Amino acid sequence: MIPPIKTAIVGASGYSGEELARLLLGHPQVELTAVTSRQYAGQTLAQVFPRHANDPRCRSLRFSEPKVESLAKAAQVVFLALPHGVAAEFAGPLLDMGCKVIDLSADFRLKNPAIYKEFYGHEHPAPALLKKSVYGLPEFYRAKIKQAALIASPGCYPTSILLPVLPLLKAGLIKSSGMIADSLSGVSGAGRKVELEFLFAECNESMRPYGIPKHRHLSEIEEQLSLAADEPVVLQFSPHLIPVNRGILTTLYLAPEKHFANDTAMAALQKQVAQCFQAAYGNEPFVRLLEGDALPDTKNVVGTNMIEIAWRLDARTGRLIVMSAIDNITKGASGQAVQSMNILCGFPETAGLG
Amino acid sequence: MIPPIKTAIVGASGYSGEELARLLLGHPQVELTAVTSRQYAGQTLAQVFPRHANDPRCRSLRFSEPKVESLAKAAQVVFLALPHGVAAEFAGPLLDMGCKVIDLSADFRLKNPAIYKEFYGHEHPAPALLKKSVYGLPEFYRAKIKQAALIASPGCYPTSILLPVLPLLKAGLIKSSGMIADSLSGVSGAGRKVELEFLFAECNESMRPYGIPKHRHLSEIEEQLSLAADEPVVLQFSPHLIPVNRGILTTLYLAPEKHFANDTAMAALQKQVAQCFQAAYGNEPFVRLLEGDALPDTKNVVGTNMIEIAWRLDARTGRLIVMSAIDNITKGASGQAVQSMNILCGFPETAGLG
Amino acid sequence: MIPPIKTAIVGASGYSGEELARLLLGHPQVELTAVTSRQYAGQTLAQVFPRHANDPRCRSLRFSEPKVESLAKAAQVVFLALPHGVAAEFAGPLLDMGCKVIDLSADFRLKNPAIYKEFYGHEHPAPALLKKSVYGLPEFYRAKIKQAALIASPGCYPTSILLPVLPLLKAGLIKSSGMIADSLSGVSGAGRKVELEFLFAECNESMRPYGIPKHRHLSEIEEQLSLAADEPVVLQFSPHLIPVNRGILTTLYLAPEKHFANDTAMAALQKQVAQCFQAAYGNEPFVRLLEGDALPDTKNVVGTNMIEIAWRLDARTGRLIVMSAIDNITKGASGQAVQSMNILCGFPETAGLG
Amino acid sequence: MIPPIKTAIVGASGYSGEELARLLLGHPQVELTAVTSRQYAGQTLAQVFPRHANDPRCRSLRFSEPKVESLAKAAQVVFLALPHGVAAEFAGPLLDMGCKVIDLSADFRLKNPAIYKEFYGHEHPAPALLKKSVYGLPEFYRAKIKQAALIASPGCYPTSILLPVLPLLKAGLIKSSGMIADSLSGVSGAGRKVELEFLFAECNESMRPYGIPKHRHLSEIEEQLSLAADEPVVLQFSPHLIPVNRGILTTLYLAPEKHFANDTAMAALQKQVAQCFQAAYGNEPFVRLLEGDALPDTKNVVGTNMIEIAWRLDARTGRLIVMSAIDNITKGASGQAVQSMNILCGFPETAGLG
Repeated sequence: MIPPIKTAIVGASGYSGEELARLLLGHPQVELTAVTSRQYAGQTLAQVFPRHANDPRCRSLRFSEPKVESLAKAAQVVFLALPHGVAAEFAGPLLDMGCKVIDLSADFRLKNPAIYKEFYGHEHPAPALLKKSVYGLPEFYRAKIKQAALIASPGCYPTSILLPVLPLLKAGLIKSSGMIADSLSGVSGAGRKVELEFLFAECNESMRPYGIPKHRHLSEIEEQLSLAADEPVVLQFSPHLIPVNRGILTTLYLAPEKHFANDTAMAALQKQVAQCFQAAYGNEPFVRLLEGDALPDTKNVVGTNMIEIAWRLDARTGRLIVMSAIDNITKGASGQAVQSMNILCGFPETAGLG
Repeated sequence: MIPPIKTAIVGASGYSGEELARLLLGHPQVELTAVTSRQYAGQTLAQVFPRHANDPRCRSLRFSEPKVESLAKAAQVVFLALPHGVAAEFAGPLLDMGCKVIDLSADFRLKNPAIYKEFYGHEHPAPALLKKSVYGLPEFYRAKIKQAALIASPGCYPTSILLPVLPLLKAGLIKSSGMIADSLSGVSGAGRKVELEFLFAECNESMRPYGIPKHRHLSEIEEQLSLAADEPVVLQFSPHLIPVNRGILTTLYLAPEKHFANDTAMAALQKQVAQCFQAAYGNEPFVRLLEGDALPDTKNVVGTNMIEIAWRLDARTGRLIVMSAIDNITKGASGQAVQSMNILCGFPETAGLG
Repeated sequence: MIPPIKTAIVGASGYSGEELARLLLGHPQVELTAVTSRQYAGQTLAQVFPRHANDPRCRSLRFSEPKVESLAKAAQVVFLALPHGVAAEFAGPLLDMGCKVIDLSADFRLKNPAIYKEFYGHEHPAPALLKKSVYGLPEFYRAKIKQAALIASPGCYPTSILLPVLPLLKAGLIKSSGMIADSLSGVSGAGRKVELEFLFAECNESMRPYGIPKHRHLSEIEEQLSLAADEPVVLQFSPHLIPVNRGILTTLYLAPEKHFANDTAMAALQKQVAQCFQAAYGNEPFVRLLEGDALPDTKNVVGTNMIEIAWRLDARTGRLIVMSAIDNITKGASGQAVQSMNILCGFPETAGLG
Repeated sequence: MIPPIKTAIVGASGYSGEELARLLLGHPQVELTAVTSRQYAGQTLAQVFPRHANDPRCRSLRFSEPKVESLAKAAQVVFLALPHGVAAEFAGPLLDMGCKVIDLSADFRLKNPAIYKEFYGHEHPAPALLKKSVYGLPEFYRAKIKQAALIASPGCYPTSILLPVLPLLKAGLIKSSGMIADSLSGVSGAGRKVELEFLFAECNESMRPYGIPKHRHLSEIEEQLSLAADEPVVLQFSPHLIPVNRGILTTLYLAPEKHFANDTAMAALQKQVAQCFQAAYGNEPFVRLLEGDALPDTKNVVGTNMIEIAWRLDARTGRLIVMSAIDNITKGASGQAVQSMNILCGFPETAGLG
């Protein structure tokens, strides 16, 4: 029997960290050997996450202060579930000591440090690592993930946008200009930040846009879209905060390359779009292409690593509307990170994600 | 002292009907003399709406079967809060007997019976009345409402879309083509329909699009936009169902007529848009133009007849993003209907809506 | 015409403060002349509460630093919506300068400073004022409120418990021992406290008890029950946190003085309880005694100053079950405080609370 | 390798049925061979439950009309997730044809047909089967479940009440008289019933009691309590409807046999209660005895087969307060039924429930 891979989570007390812990504890081929948290150092996983308190491993595993040496000793694969900017402090040293690093922050998602500076307001803290890092979107970077030492796991909004758009863009079915992504997120998307605007009584019975028109996630989305289109792509992106715990719903407004004013052209385009998605995702374990009248609903993906995708051609406006739903914490963060780990370690891609 | 105007509500047991009853009972210049409901005939308002059970008038006023003769005797102004198609049966006879009619259904919102047929799937039941009816959007049809016998009060989605767009379109600041309205609605927007998909456990923790890409409300929105643009307008409209009781949040993607790639052009356009909204709504009692960083939030309008509007120019995409928030049952239905009644009867426009 | 009474709110930026502002701005016989908040000093009411931003008074009235002299000059009646312990610093000086003070905190609700110390963990800061203060439960202390200089407005849980229990206790229909109050509260009951446990994602889809078995509110409830019973009363009280914005639902388990094992005894007791509630509340404008099969539902009282009360005798257990529903912020705090002000100032008791 | 046990679900389209399907499809030692539903006959599981649509088995398994012969051929263990009264029609014939039957309805939970009639209003349809059936509460009837042909899986409220109370009652630590259970349930507890009162806009922002004072579930709870106490027990039980999807929170008011007015007596009783729960549940995989300050929270059990239990002695009132939290659909219905199946089939008790 092969010994399990040892894993650690740095910054395990937020929502993504908790979900990572849940997934790794339930994974048949890995062991969770260390979890860190400055705030909860000394407490057991069971104390901090009562939901998992019956698991004997959660009763013995304690949060520790994050220290690179101990982490490198404890684990072969280290997940960073840290705020933007902090992850970069850990990634380099951990890589130097031979660990594989899967970072859930935005620190290594961009190739271009200039764009990082534009969107994050300061110089990138470790530009050399940007070249090494692989964007951890398994459906598109599977081969690179397999070889990577540093994986930058995509953000939740980017995942909900890129998976529906990339196949269409690569197939040349849509224009790379004029794209719009209108996204709705559950409140856990803000993390476990203790701020007035995320109090229950401020969010419940409320619907509101925010970060309009230049949300930070735009940088990584546009970089990926530009790579796929092989030309600079600018996206209109509007996030909204919605009173649900988990989930992202994205509605995309896209312009097909071909007009489809008459029925024949429309039928032909219908076929092409269907074939494009089928070719891209027909065998993907975590993509659900909806059929018939079905439209995405976050309640059908919450708690899973699945993305639901549906689309409609609108002959009246000449647009292609594509809609997607994911769990922002699973497929949008921790589930996708585990999916990348599975690829990296040569496990079945669905291991521990069922 | 002027005797109060007598009013009646036909179909008063739904959410719009209940809100109408609440508003008319609290209105200083009207009396509510009759409420009808086939389902609840014989019961008092107090029995059906426990919330209002302490009002002595609610303890005496009973729901009756809807009969045109009794209604015409009981009331000078009759509100129809009936399903689409049913309202038309009452409007004609009531008008013939001298009542003013304010209809909250979609039956008389369109001028063109052919469009009605296209969107509602059958011939219009009373096409002659379409010419007579006035679209009850007070901010734009105040003068006509004053003279009207039959007022077709706008739908909730249309209100949230037309109020932000019409001034821009009339001022020639935006293109009439390519407009997109992405809207989120609370579940009361579906009415008090007892259907599986509107059960608590089916809506809570769920976000989902529906009616994509050709929702019925498009017909009235496009007709009004076309009138304002003086050319046929086609709109992309995507409604979504969100787990809140009340509220509509709309995000509009619009193309300014002028490019604003450089800072000077952008500043000029900023000024024009601000002036346009100020000119249109600076003195409107129920329009709140947000300032500074503020963005619309449905929790700030729920329970009121107010619409919140904010906008942003996006130099990266060249678009104008306009966002609005209303209460779908108040400004989106019953509050706006009372606002029209106030105009019709010569009352202060804010009477009973404070 | 009588000039309006001038009022001020100290600590107006919390949920109770905002509700007070809403009620006082809508009150026909008062003027709101000052609002204080250390955090928001300098900003207008319109900026801090976007919901009220259209009111010209909200656009001009600015939050100021709380200073006794200015308050005493600006207002005849001063509302204190401050945390426990802080209110006492303002009450004395304001009284000395001739203001009437209505305090929404727990600082002056108890007569006995020893009980204050037991429950709040420190000496009462102004024990002399305890004798002067009147417990602002209008249905029971109307005459005293009329004469008071310092009114201690009851807490939300106490209101939901005392109104159902006091009439029964005073009439000798129930035993004063063994009473249990099981209460559910919406999250606004915790105030606008920015703490992890009140984040949306921590409260939504959660139901949980807290403060078991000795919640601070017990002190004032037991003091009032003891006064009514004319002997020391000990209450079992269990609060729970429920994912709604507003509302308290209380279920009371009471032991009738008389057994009612047979049908005749039960019918007799039914009549006595009904008469007792009718005598106590038949003419009260803010108490709704439910009839027939109806049971309280917070959605029927939220946004109002009403309490709903229903009761059932259970022949199987020999108990009397009484249930109540209020809005914790209105009848449970600010609405009730305004009701007291109406009594104090000789206004109709329902003024501004309709 | 042992071939998997074949299982079927009759009435698989409700919330319990869907959860059963989810659990059985994920169970390592069983196969789900048939699902029935009159309403959805002909459709696949994937079509009716989009959440599971990626599972190839869900894409091939179709709902069929419920027919005893086909069910008996298809399955060794048949789960009945049918309304009360309907289950009895299937249980007898299935047992006659050699199936094991696990019934999730209330039809076979009572031993005494007279009590059934009292609470359900009609004669029991198959009184002979009552003697055969075993009450499927694994923590107390493990040995009998192992031998049973017909298992009556407990209701959700009963589970949340019996697990905390039975050990105390059996140990003689509490009085069997005067017990009170105050319970809060999520809306899925009402099943997938399409009724006005369960619409989103009727439940959201609402808290309300119902079925006071004589809910049907009392019959099975009292029968089990009476068996444990060896004398007739009457319980006060008050259910409330709360706007969450899933979960039951129960607060129990119990009277210890011994007084504990002084500290020594209290410490002694503390120890006894702790030992009692430890003895009963220390090794139970699905019972979590909370420690320290922790109190139950439904969010920590939703989606799991776990019950959380905490308790407090209240020296002021002399009562023992016990609180529990479960997922009403999992531990309160389908999870517990699978736990019983595991015992019946000799599987590890946690199989498929992890």
